[in-house]
Order: sequence, then structure tokens, then C-alpha cells
Amino acid sequence: MLRFNSDYMEGAHQQILDRLGAINLEKMTGYGLDEICESAKKKIRRACNKPDAEIYFLVGGTQANAVVIRSILKLYEGVIAADTGHINGHEAGAIEYGGHKVLSIPNRGGKLCAEAVDKYVRAFYEDRSYTHMVNPGMVYISHPTECGTLYTKEELKQLRAVCDKYNMPLYLDGARLGYGLAAEGTDLTLEDIAGLCDVFYIGGTKVGALFGEAVVFTHHMVEGFYTIMKQSGAMLAKGWLLGVQFDELFTDGLYMKGAENGIKTAMRLKAGLGDKGYSFLFDSPTNQQFVIVGNDKIAELDGKVTFSFWEPYDDAHHVLRFATSWATTDEDVDALLTLM
Amino acid sequence: MLRFNSDYMEGAHQQILDRLGAINLEKMTGYGLDEICESAKKKIRRACNKPDAEIYFLVGGTQANAVVIRSILKLYEGVIAADTGHINGHEAGAIEYGGHKVLSIPNRGGKLCAEAVDKYVRAFYEDRSYTHMVNPGMVYISHPTECGTLYTKEELKQLRAVCDKYNMPLYLDGARLGYGLAAEGTDLTLEDIAGLCDVFYIGGTKVGALFGEAVVFTHHMVEGFYTIMKQSGAMLAKGWLLGVQFDELFTDGLYMKGAENGIKTAMRLKAGLGDKGYSFLFDSPTNQQFVIVGNDKIAELDGKVTFSFWEPYDDAHHVLRFATSWATTDEDVDALLTLM
Amino acid sequence: MLRFNSDYMEGAHQQILDRLGAINLEKMTGYGLDEICESAKKKIRRACNKPDAEIYFLVGGTQANAVVIRSILKLYEGVIAADTGHINGHEAGAIEYGGHKVLSIPNRGGKLCAEAVDKYVRAFYEDRSYTHMVNPGMVYISHPTECGTLYTKEELKQLRAVCDKYNMPLYLDGARLGYGLAAEGTDLTLEDIAGLCDVFYIGGTKVGALFGEAVVFTHHMVEGFYTIMKQSGAMLAKGWLLGVQFDELFTDGLYMKGAENGIKTAMRLKAGLGDKGYSFLFDSPTNQQFVIVGNDKIAELDGKVTFSFWEPYDDAHHVLRFATSWATTDEDVDALLTLM
Amino acid sequence: MLRFNSDYMEGAHQQILDRLGAINLEKMTGYGLDEICESAKKKIRRACNKPDAEIYFLVGGTQANAVVIRSILKLYEGVIAADTGHINGHEAGAIEYGGHKVLSIPNRGGKLCAEAVDKYVRAFYEDRSYTHMVNPGMVYISHPTECGTLYTKEELKQLRAVCDKYNMPLYLDGARLGYGLAAEGTDLTLEDIAGLCDVFYIGGTKVGALFGEAVVFTHHMVEGFYTIMKQSGAMLAKGWLLGVQFDELFTDGLYMKGAENGIKTAMRLKAGLGDKGYSFLFDSPTNQQFVIVGNDKIAELDGKVTFSFWEPYDDAHHVLRFATSWATTDEDVDALLTLM
Repeated sequence: MLRFNSDYMEGAHQQILDRLGAINLEKMTGYGLDEICESAKKKIRRACNKPDAEIYFLVGGTQANAVVIRSILKLYEGVIAADTGHINGHEAGAIEYGGHKVLSIPNRGGKLCAEAVDKYVRAFYEDRSYTHMVNPGMVYISHPTECGTLYTKEELKQLRAVCDKYNMPLYLDGARLGYGLAAEGTDLTLEDIAGLCDVFYIGGTKVGALFGEAVVFTHHMVEGFYTIMKQSGAMLAKGWLLGVQFDELFTDGLYMKGAENGIKTAMRLKAGLGDKGYSFLFDSPTNQQFVIVGNDKIAELDGKVTFSFWEPYDDAHHVLRFATSWATTDEDVDALLTLM
Repeated sequence: MLRFNSDYMEGAHQQILDRLGAINLEKMTGYGLDEICESAKKKIRRACNKPDAEIYFLVGGTQANAVVIRSILKLYEGVIAADTGHINGHEAGAIEYGGHKVLSIPNRGGKLCAEAVDKYVRAFYEDRSYTHMVNPGMVYISHPTECGTLYTKEELKQLRAVCDKYNMPLYLDGARLGYGLAAEGTDLTLEDIAGLCDVFYIGGTKVGALFGEAVVFTHHMVEGFYTIMKQSGAMLAKGWLLGVQFDELFTDGLYMKGAENGIKTAMRLKAGLGDKGYSFLFDSPTNQQFVIVGNDKIAELDGKVTFSFWEPYDDAHHVLRFATSWATTDEDVDALLTLM
Repeated sequence: MLRFNSDYMEGAHQQILDRLGAINLEKMTGYGLDEICESAKKKIRRACNKPDAEIYFLVGGTQANAVVIRSILKLYEGVIAADTGHINGHEAGAIEYGGHKVLSIPNRGGKLCAEAVDKYVRAFYEDRSYTHMVNPGMVYISHPTECGTLYTKEELKQLRAVCDKYNMPLYLDGARLGYGLAAEGTDLTLEDIAGLCDVFYIGGTKVGALFGEAVVFTHHMVEGFYTIMKQSGAMLAKGWLLGVQFDELFTDGLYMKGAENGIKTAMRLKAGLGDKGYSFLFDSPTNQQFVIVGNDKIAELDGKVTFSFWEPYDDAHHVLRFATSWATTDEDVDALLTLM
Repeated sequence: MLRFNSDYMEGAHQQILDRLGAINLEKMTGYGLDEICESAKKKIRRACNKPDAEIYFLVGGTQANAVVIRSILKLYEGVIAADTGHINGHEAGAIEYGGHKVLSIPNRGGKLCAEAVDKYVRAFYEDRSYTHMVNPGMVYISHPTECGTLYTKEELKQLRAVCDKYNMPLYLDGARLGYGLAAEGTDLTLEDIAGLCDVFYIGGTKVGALFGEAVVFTHHMVEGFYTIMKQSGAMLAKGWLLGVQFDELFTDGLYMKGAENGIKTAMRLKAGLGDKGYSFLFDSPTNQQFVIVGNDKIAELDGKVTFSFWEPYDDAHHVLRFATSWATTDEDVDALLTLM
């Protein structure tokens, strides 16, 4: 059975496993206060060109989103997000559990448009009853988006400008950040992102780690984030397990190497499917491909390859999502192409 | 200055003030455990034809919505509402503060359509990742809606059927319930509502009381609601103040008399404005009228009458909301018509 | 039946009812934005000698405590209180519902001792794992306490000093504040309290109003408190009902007149019981008296007078609480003394 | 430097690392829905003799406690715990973040005494104002306790009886469960615990796993626990990482072998220290030893061995906690004994 249903189906880069094995019986300090975590943070600060960044390692993406967002928002504020944003639909209400509303705005190809945010916030403050409404307190975007699309540097700058205009922090969910940075044609670098966002996370789970997300506050924003992590059940006792993974990922470009493999295999798949005449719901330059497939073909694929159902397209077609990863091989892709 | 900006600008029916005055120095039992509250509950049960209804008196509408909804939903559930629903936009995130997402669906004239709810919930359970999503746990409607419109008995039955299909309680926000029951042409009675909803509240604040909403659980649904009220800061120490008001409102039809006055004056206003050639955003049979008014005229009204800005209509017009109440006089309406 | 079980068994001063009657049909601005609220706030600011105080009117005490405390604390902080503090035992977990722990410290006669707070906080910061613990973020006291006792000016200054030392706001729950200010022998004035606390509330419900508590922030502390009130279901639509009550209470010393009556009748009761040989659990100079009564006598009182059971004293006695109020008469007290 | 400051300073059993390595590039189903998780659950059910147990794998102990407790309690309920209970002091308010109060009762040697729980709950329901108070909704114990002590089977049965009497679920925090089961002289088996508790967790983090706790509901109790996990940020994307660890731990007795090593080395330490004349704060049969050490000696140890400061004992002594683990060697212990 071929498997393309997600980008977190494999373990981790061998270097990570090796390092974990090598230090397995060394006695380490707990709760992320160890030297390996420090080393990893230094490397990330350097990669971001943000020497004063505050970095925390969390276990997963929903957890990172929930803890970061509730640590930033005031009680009466909500977070602006595209309606397709992960926090709006696929985190089981984690943001609301933290007491905050997700203020959703219709997406454009999975993206949040600066103009739409500006319009939303302007209308909010023009509403004479706004003190009875959830205040827009920050902006959430994902990059790549849930639709596989990417912001351009210009788009991110525009979002930054709107955030500045209304004094809202900008938060970027980088669950698949590597695949965004490695995509062909992107003009956004990690340094750009660190320069334009207040806080973002570098996703490890989907880009070569066993698990783990590195939350980067590009400047000091939150008092007591460490204790808030503990309170949220988001502090790993053996914190060095996260440190080791990011320390390896940010050594010799391992993070980007994995990401590049995901992109290379995704582009091979995209080209192959295009050659076969398939159309795509979004023009994704990243590791998720959203392909319009006839229902008969889908029946035929059953039991041979796994994928995600994205949505019905029309009576005769569905959109399927195929995801590659740091571990996908050209052979996998070619086998899939043979089936399609 | 004429004032039509809301329906809670006056105190209460004189009978209520008189009764409060009459018992002022009687020593009463606190927290709603007094005999007047019991009397009021009996009258409401009778009016609803629900002898086993459990009734609680709360102080205000946002409070009632927040406490009822969080008392019913399971942790991982949200409440379905029209996007125009009061809980979705004008309660400052009270539902989210309780930990739950408002699952908003586009309204039709302020109403939630049974078919749209059915489609939403069906799609939810067809989504293979629904265990990662907020489960639809109950349905919220307001009657009259925030747009002044009304459900028909047939529409409410259809919503009930969808709720039954998916095992979701149906909750009706009756902040302006009296004006709905008194509207010309409605075929929905209080008894119908009690028969079709699991829980609803009879709004006092906007329909003749100083304050107060009577929450009616038509059958036993929630353990510990009384303690949840206390925990929510929603238990009035001198609970009899609420009991007195509802006891009076449900004596000799006082509640409906006030509501009928609101409707009579609203219809006078609607007819008068129609005669003058004004158009309306919604065809409202209740006490809120949404009138399309030219910006020049609006400027002219400034300082002479108060109203609510609803929304811009086009470059030259805005929609204004004029509200009547149990206390509005024909003279007020005629004076307004003269200005328009 | 005589009734001494609480201090919120009667309505309100006649002046309040009269004023409510007088303005009943005047059309008022909602949500506390009216001129009467402004007038009441001015009078309170003057009485407190705090021209810049920010004042909000809420409906009840649990509500006030819950909204104030959650508006002040950071996510990872808790509120220090005496174990007998109202928020610790009798508010059904309202503080925890807001996400915060009550850090309880053993009381001394119902009071929180500055030395005990200092010791607690010092030990907290000396604990090497304090970043894994709830941080002490503010101090809650009630005055009079739940035991009827009072802080001296010196005690309050000491608490203030500890709060300053650890940068914690000091919050005073004044549900019965009037009775504290009117007590014989107290050296604490309203101005002192306003000078020493960051925030406190002046209780109306128990001291002559139908309902209502005036929260006084003695300096600017919280962004968006108004919206937080709305979100908490704590904003009264007809906010002027609260304004009217406090405007009357702070006209011609009405608040203190009511309080003085509560004290006068309580002292009459205390003296009378003392003459009859009764002992008291606490030496209370305020309107609550905690009397040790034999079980036989308690059985005898049954059906003749109501009171609160405070706690068992020994096998043969219970502690009963008798409360007077602004509305208690000498005749009531004398009738009770005859029974005892 | 010797290190005895905690029992989570090492990675995991080599078998676990090997298995992770072996399946590293196999494509697995996410979110704990894979076959290895199923296998691990079967083994745990068998070890517990509870064929219908519902088992979930979570990442850490605070997370497990927070998610389990909030999934069980009704809104107006709190959890009874010893004042020394981990949830009461060392989880940064995670339970309160979930909206619930920890109802703490003075411990006896770290344990919660059935008689004390009975007394607490009886007094609660005898209090006439209990509907204004946090209802006791479940009982939390840890085994071994935070003081290293153990419940006997008789004590656990008594707690179960009190829980049955008041219809409260019994929850056991087994962060160090292995060390409790392996302790000399204990009469409580895993099967006993599964028979007497409603829900408990088998701690992996401190007993041989990299991380992970297996929550065992011994019967069906909670709707939607899986979605609540997601909402809480407590669902691991690569859930099989947890499954693998527990599958290995419950193969060939690996879990108990690790635990036995922790006990053996702790007893060696305890005996050695006793021989040297040291006293202990608690008589702990488990892997944590609480030793009373003179301040001069403590100064001498500085830089040679790490430990935890438990609390000051008197002016001249502190209580130090030394913890052994599945990975501690006799050589480590002997080296420590030489220093003492």
C-alpha cells in the first residue's frame, strides 16, 4: 500500500535517532533547561538573525497555537484567522477552550489578505457597539497554508503593515514551515519571517522530527510563558528530547534538506499528474497537492494508496490531497503516478 | 429629543414598581427561594402548558445565554447559530469565555434555516476528521431575531426535526419574545415554543420589566444549574426582585399587553414610513424596524431623534434601526414621522 | 416570625424606590453610560477623595469578585485570600471558573495577616520549582470579614506594604463595607481604604440598595474592563438602575445612615445577649454576631426566629449567626432578646 | 557530578530506542489509531485484567491529570486531593485553568485518608449553603505519593468505599506507578488498582519511557475523550511513538524490571544512609528518599551531587530528596554514599 495521506507518517531523520541513542543514559536537566536546548536555541536565533529571540520548544502544533494565542490575547480579544485556518476548524476548539473567539475572514486560496483584515478591523471600530464585541487582538496565518499555498514577501509586509496600524501582533503557524521555505519561487526566507512576525513556530513534527515545534518570539512579549506552558500541560519533562531534535535539524542544514526532499517529490508528483491531465484545486508549490479526481478512479485507488479526502468537487469528482514529506522517495511518487 | 434607539430605555410597568414598593420592607428569603418566585414559576408553567418545566430567573440576556449554553454543551461541543445571532457578534465572546465555539451559519433574514443546519451537521459527520473538530452540540435561535423577523411554526418544527435527527437540544433566545408573540400574523404561541424547544428564555428586560429573564427548561436537562448560576455570578441575592417582576408580568396578561403596545406603535411607524416612501432592509413584523434612510436626512435628524446605525446601505444611504417598546406612545411615533 | 438570617432580606431605602419611580418613564441611555451613573461616580470619587478613580457598577458580589479578579490576574497567577474568604468557600468556584487558583492562607479571626502573606510569598519565591506553581498575583481581603471582624488602619497598611514589596495589587471586598465604616472604634475611613487599596467595591446589596456593587479602581489598572463585564454577563442593560441607587446612597449620607442603623441594632443585640450570659465566637463590632447557643435553646427558637447555622461548637452547642441590616428595628432586636 | 535530583534524567530502555529505530521509516497512521497502539492497549488491558478498559496515551503527567479531571467533573464540581497532591501545588494551576477547584485536605504522610474524605464530604452536605459551594465531584490520589509513600490495599478499599458512598469517581495518578508496584511489602497490585479505581494512569516518563502516560478508564465514563484530548493540545500527531513505548514496556515485564531497579537502588541508598545515622522525613519504600541533612554537609555536597531541596527542617538541617530510577546503578548509589 502506498501512503500519501499525510506528512507525519514517518519517524525522524536518522541523525536525530542517532543523537538520542548517543545521549540516552546521560543524566540531563529536565524541563528544557539543559544545554542541548540552549544550543538549539542559539542555532535557531542565528538562522533567524534574531539574537534576542525567546524560544520555547513545544510538542505539537495545536498545543503551540493554543498556548501562544492565549498567552498573547487580552481577555476580551479574539484572533483573526482565515476561515480555512487550522485553528478555526481542525483543533477541536482549542482556542475557545482558552476563552477566545476565532474571528474568521474568508480566505483567498487559503491565505488571509491584508486588505480584508484592514476592512474587518476598520469596520469593527466603526461599529458603535464595538465595546460589546470581541476585539481583534492578533492575526494568525499559516505558512504554507492549509491549502499548500504561500505568502509572498509583499503580502506578508502588507499584513505586517495592517498589524502595525491596529497594534496587533502577527503570529505565523509554521507547522510546515520548511516546505514553504524550500518551495520553488518563494521570496520569503526564514529571516524575512522572523523580521516581519512577532511570533511564529518552526514545525518539526512534519519536517523531519519525531515531534516538536520551536516557538520563536522575535522580541519579548509575554510574562510567564514558561509557567503558562506548564499550566497548559505543554511542558515536556524530558525537554532535551525536543532540544536534541532541533539541535540536529539546525545542524548542517538538515531541516532544509528534509524540506527540499518533500518539495522535490511533490513537484515530481505535480508534474506527473499534470502530464496525465489532472487539474488541481490550488496551485500549490509545496508538499501538499490537491488533485481533482474522478469518483471511478478514486474507487480504483482504494486499497492501493492512501490519501485525504479534501472535499467533494462535483457529482463526479472529489478533491484528494496527496502529501509528500522529508521521507518520501521518488519511487513512491512514481508508483503513485502509475496508479493514477 | 425623541428616542428610538433601543427597547430598554424605560424602567418597568407601574404595577411592578408598585408591588416592589408594597413588599419593600417584608423580610424575604434570598437567592430565589421565596414564595413569590414560586408563584411566578407556577404562572409561567401554566402559560407554557409545561407543568414540569424547571424555571430560573436571571438578570440579563447575555448572562442567560452564557449560563444556559455552557450548562448544556459537553466540553468538545459548540453551539450552532446564525451568523447574525446575538451570541455570535454582540456578547463580547461570552460563549467562548465559557470554552465553546459558536458554529455560525449564514442567516436568511436573521433566521437559521433547518435545511442549512441539516447540511452543516451532515457535512460535519461526513468529514473523516470530525473527531478533530468542534462537535455541533446544540442549536441557538433568537425569536424575534436580531433582524426583527419571526420563525413560523413550520420553520420551528423543521428545526426541531433536525435537532431530533442529530440529538441536539434546541435553545431559543427570547430577549424580545413578547414582541414575537404579539406580532400580527405570527402562528407561533408561547405554548408552541415550549412544546418545540428544549429550553428558552422569556425576556423581561425589553418587555416591561426593570430587568430579568426567565429561563425555562421544558424538561430536566442539567444537573446543578443553580450552582452553575452562582459560579457564573448570575444569582441575584435578592432573587425575589426577579420573582416579583415575572409574577406581575404573568398576571392579567401584563406581559402581552406591553408587547402589544410595542407592536402597535411599531406598525404605526412602519405604515407611516411606508407611506412616506421609505424602504426597509427586512420586512419586520416586530418592534424593530430597519429603515433605509438617505445620508442627508440622517444629518437632518441629528439632535432630534436617536436611533441605531445598523449598517451602511450604499454610498448615499444607511440602514437605521428604530425600536419601539411596551412604553412607546403613539405621540412619540407621530412626532418621529413628522421628522422623517 | 422574626428574621435575622441575613442582611439582604429587605428591599431598599425608600428614597431609592422614589427616585426609580420618578424617572421610570424617562428614556435613558443603556449600559451605564447615562448621566445618573456619571453623577453617582462623581459622588463616590469625592467620598473616596480619588478624583481619578475608575468606577463600574455591577449587580452582585460574587460577580464583582469574579470579574475584578480575572481582569487583574495574569494567566499563571492566583489570588491570595484567607481560607475563610468568601471567594474561597462560598462562590461556587467562580474564581476557578475564571481560570485561577485561590491561594488560601489560614485566617486569624477572619482576617488575613500581613506577616502570613509575607511568609507565604517569600517561601513561594524561595521554592526552586516556583515556575511550576501558581504565582501569587494579588491579595484579596474582605472588610468587614466573613466573621464580622475589621482590619485596623495599621493592619491594612501592613498588608499594603507586603503588596508593594511583591508588586501585588490589593483588592478589598466591601460587600458589607458600610457596616465596617460605621462600626464603633474603627479607625479606617473610606478615604483610607481608597488610599491603601488598588481596587475595592462598595457593597450596595447588603447596605440599603435593591442590588448593586460599586467597583472602584483607585487608579487605571485594566484595559477593557467594560468589555470584560459584558463578556462575563455582568453588564446591566438598564445600567442607570445601578446609578440611581448609588447616586441616592451617596446623597446626604444615606449609605452611612443605613449602615449606622445596622450597627446600632447589632450592638443592641450584642449587649443584650452578653447580659444574658451568651458568649460569642468572634468579637464582632459589625452587623453580624456569632453567638454560641445551646442545642436545646436552638430547638426552642425553631419556628420563632430565623438565623444562620455557622458551625457546630461542641456536642451541646452550635454557633449561630444573627445579622442586622440598614432596615432592622430596635423592636426586632428586643423581640429576639426576649426569645433568647 | 552525581545526579539524584529526579527520576526523569535519562532517556529510555534500549529496547524502546531499538524498536523506534526499527520502524522509523514505516509509514504509520497518525493520532494513536495505529496497530502498535492497539497492541499496547491489549497488553495493558491484560495486565490490568480489565478487558473493557478504555486506554489513551498522553505525553505527560500534568497533561494527563488536567485532561482526565476536566473530562470527568461537572462544571460545578471540584476534585478532592491531599494538600501535598501534585495537582494542588506543582502543576501551575492546570486544574483551575480547566475551571475547577482543587478541594485540598491535609495529608497524612502524603496520603489522603478515607476517614478525612468522608468527614469532608459529610460536612459539605450538612452545610445548608452547599449549593453555593464547589461540590466534591471526584477524588484524586497519587500512588506512590509525592512523599514516596504507598497506600495499602485496605486503605484503597476504604477510599473506594467513601467514593461509592458519595458517588465520586476515584482517580489515581500513577506517575511513578511502577515504583509503587515494585516496592517491598506493598500488597497492591496493578490488578487491584484497576479493580478499585475508576481511572488511573500508568506513568511511563519516570519509569523507563522517553515520555508518555497510559490513561486507563476501567469502564466507560467520558464521551468524546479523544476530541477533548485534541482540544487540550494533548494528542500526539505521531501517536505510535507512545504506542511503541508502552508496547515494549508491557512486553516481557520490562516496565516492572525498570521499576525494580529503581527500588533496589533506592533501598540500597536508604540502608546505607540509615547505617550512617541519617534520619528520614518519611519512611519511603519507593524510589524517592527524603533525608534530613545538616547544612554543613549540604554545603560540602555542592558541586558533587545534585538533589532536590524538599523543605527546611530546622535551623541547622534541610530535607533533601534523592531519587533513583530504572537507570540508576549500584555504583551511583555507592558513590553517593561515600559522599554522605
